[in-house]
Amino acid sequence: MKNIPLILMGCGGVGRHLLQHIVSCRLLHAKLGVHLRVVGVSDSKSLVLTSDVIKAELNDNFLSEVCRVKSDGSSLSKLNDLGDCKVFSNSESRTKILDIASVLGKSTGLALVDCSASSETTGVLTQVVDLGCCVVLANKKPLTSTLEDYDKLVSYPRRIRHESTVGAGLPVISSLNRIISSGDPIHRIIGSLSGTLGYVMSEVEDGKPLSQVVKTAKSLGYTEPDPRDDLGGMDVARKALILARLLGRRISLDSIKIESLYPKEMEPGVMSVQDFMENGLVKLDNNIQERVKKASLNGNVLRYVCVIDGSRCEVGLQELPKNSALGRLRGSDNVLEIYSRCYNEQPLVIQGAGAGNDTTAAGVLADILDLQDLFPL
Amino acid sequence: MKNIPLILMGCGGVGRHLLQHIVSCRLLHAKLGVHLRVVGVSDSKSLVLTSDVIKAELNDNFLSEVCRVKSDGSSLSKLNDLGDCKVFSNSESRTKILDIASVLGKSTGLALVDCSASSETTGVLTQVVDLGCCVVLANKKPLTSTLEDYDKLVSYPRRIRHESTVGAGLPVISSLNRIISSGDPIHRIIGSLSGTLGYVMSEVEDGKPLSQVVKTAKSLGYTEPDPRDDLGGMDVARKALILARLLGRRISLDSIKIESLYPKEMEPGVMSVQDFMENGLVKLDNNIQERVKKASLNGNVLRYVCVIDGSRCEVGLQELPKNSALGRLRGSDNVLEIYSRCYNEQPLVIQGAGAGNDTTAAGVLADILDLQDLFPL
Repeated sequence: MKNIPLILMGCGGVGRHLLQHIVSCRLLHAKLGVHLRVVGVSDSKSLVLTSDVIKAELNDNFLSEVCRVKSDGSSLSKLNDLGDCKVFSNSESRTKILDIASVLGKSTGLALVDCSASSETTGVLTQVVDLGCCVVLANKKPLTSTLEDYDKLVSYPRRIRHESTVGAGLPVISSLNRIISSGDPIHRIIGSLSGTLGYVMSEVEDGKPLSQVVKTAKSLGYTEPDPRDDLGGMDVARKALILARLLGRRISLDSIKIESLYPKEMEPGVMSVQDFMENGLVKLDNNIQERVKKASLNGNVLRYVCVIDGSRCEVGLQELPKNSALGRLRGSDNVLEIYSRCYNEQPLVIQGAGAGNDTTAAGVLADILDLQDLFPL
Repeated sequence: MKNIPLILMGCGGVGRHLLQHIVSCRLLHAKLGVHLRVVGVSDSKSLVLTSDVIKAELNDNFLSEVCRVKSDGSSLSKLNDLGDCKVFSNSESRTKILDIASVLGKSTGLALVDCSASSETTGVLTQVVDLGCCVVLANKKPLTSTLEDYDKLVSYPRRIRHESTVGAGLPVISSLNRIISSGDPIHRIIGSLSGTLGYVMSEVEDGKPLSQVVKTAKSLGYTEPDPRDDLGGMDVARKALILARLLGRRISLDSIKIESLYPKEMEPGVMSVQDFMENGLVKLDNNIQERVKKASLNGNVLRYVCVIDGSRCEVGLQELPKNSALGRLRGSDNVLEIYSRCYNEQPLVIQGAGAGNDTTAAGVLADILDLQDLFPL
């Protein structure tokens, strides 16, 4: 049986689902000859480690308890007096993780799994790579930091996986990596990579006012608590940057042209969420409706997409043919169209649910399993 | 630099393109830290080996010459007096390959790459797996042989790759493997996996007679020399079987319900190709046209698909909603819809060119690169 020791950083929605998946897949993974040994879990405040990181693990009962505590919205520090573990504060955790990485990285191997949404993990992740560890990311921040950080993270390309940073569990990164390694040059990627904006644009296409659509989306839980986090396009821009860097583009976030769906005078620092929802949004209705109409007159539809084409990398509204995978998109599915030598006239299209904790966690788990050949028997 | 020794079986269209890709990707692969060392190549008549299989390789000039000879339709035996190689006859080649597999399999590793279309490779492939070798297949035959052969081939699941057996280079198998390893149960797969039949059905949908469409497809080189090889559905059935077995179904080719588009009295043994094209086909026009009309009255379209649903595995014509990925399919693209827990209401859809030597060879090359962690530095 192959043993994969791992530390999970971030036990929010995705991390919690990952732990549940790990526990429920025990039998399946045993059949595949793999055991995932969870050595530690951390949230923003604490790191919980098994008492013996060389041999022991946080067992399945303990992991279930972690899930319970986190779904109650409590902190991991609550687990202090539970079973064979040690709890460390946030200030100690980085040193602790580096200690473990030094010990395990080059002997048994160690996977650092980042399901947080924090940029604070970047430091420790760039360091563990050099210690022989593997890195699995659902967190976009480390990959969208400086080029220097990026280069460090991918310096051993086989030791990093980050499928769930783009399109949740959709096989986007793994497919792009296959195309790249086969020497098939990708010259264009265009995608709708925000379930929220995909939903918004297909509803607006049906004639509904933007303000009403966003309010409905918020009430359905489709948006972030502050919908401007979706409407501003930054999340899509991070995904675009990850894809562009995968294709070898030496760019950073600030060189991506990002179109925000709201103007500067409605930014979070200027306007409260409530004010934006009640008074700001409605002022945007006319402009969007006119653009939708104009697109329709051209036989097109309006989509919020990321485009990587040659040296161009941008994120915003585009008129697209009704009769393309992107044009036909309805609801909250993500779609990616990839154009290369092999997929020239017709693109390679990958489409499906691109959000959700369950799906995102499944993508992370597949990434971990895919690293198994790097771990000794 | 990681060294991956490989033997290529089958130097027809796909194999020849693979050799070209290997040569043209030297720089790219060097950047990835990998060198593909081609130790031998074979066609149906001969096996050509480098004189020193432990250290040497058939160099790029030699490989280019192989491509030239094969694209002229000649046999590899022609290369007898060229450079540092040895040529063996078909009767010696199996023993020779097993000898090399014994020597290299557990020391440096060895990949057997089957780009032939023959069932005769099954024997040697099932044997090399036990000798520590990796197997990469574009050839569907070994995977659609008996369950006993199948079990042998996949007995070390990490050592076998066969992306290009279904949908050419489309990331179908790799994506299914990801979903499976993440414990997301797949309950339904439906796909259009024949570019030829996809083209035929979308042309027939436009009102053209089947006989005319097939004649055009043949003249465009979209069909096999005998179009009945496409119209009979056996090729799609093999792909369906490969997918079903990947999902764990313990079935064989004879338990798949296959709908042929021509009746028994027009089978190859009964009717010549010419007779079928000139007199047979036209008798099928009415029936197909009626079914297309009936589907259309139901708001559906007719597609030739494979369906794997629970224990059901069948291949044939189905009425499908116009407004689904399969219903919207035009031309020769392949489409696969995957339904699982994570992709429940809306499927995960993978679509794109599913044929062509270039694309198929690119899929094989990506598979080989994906095995790299199993080879020692």
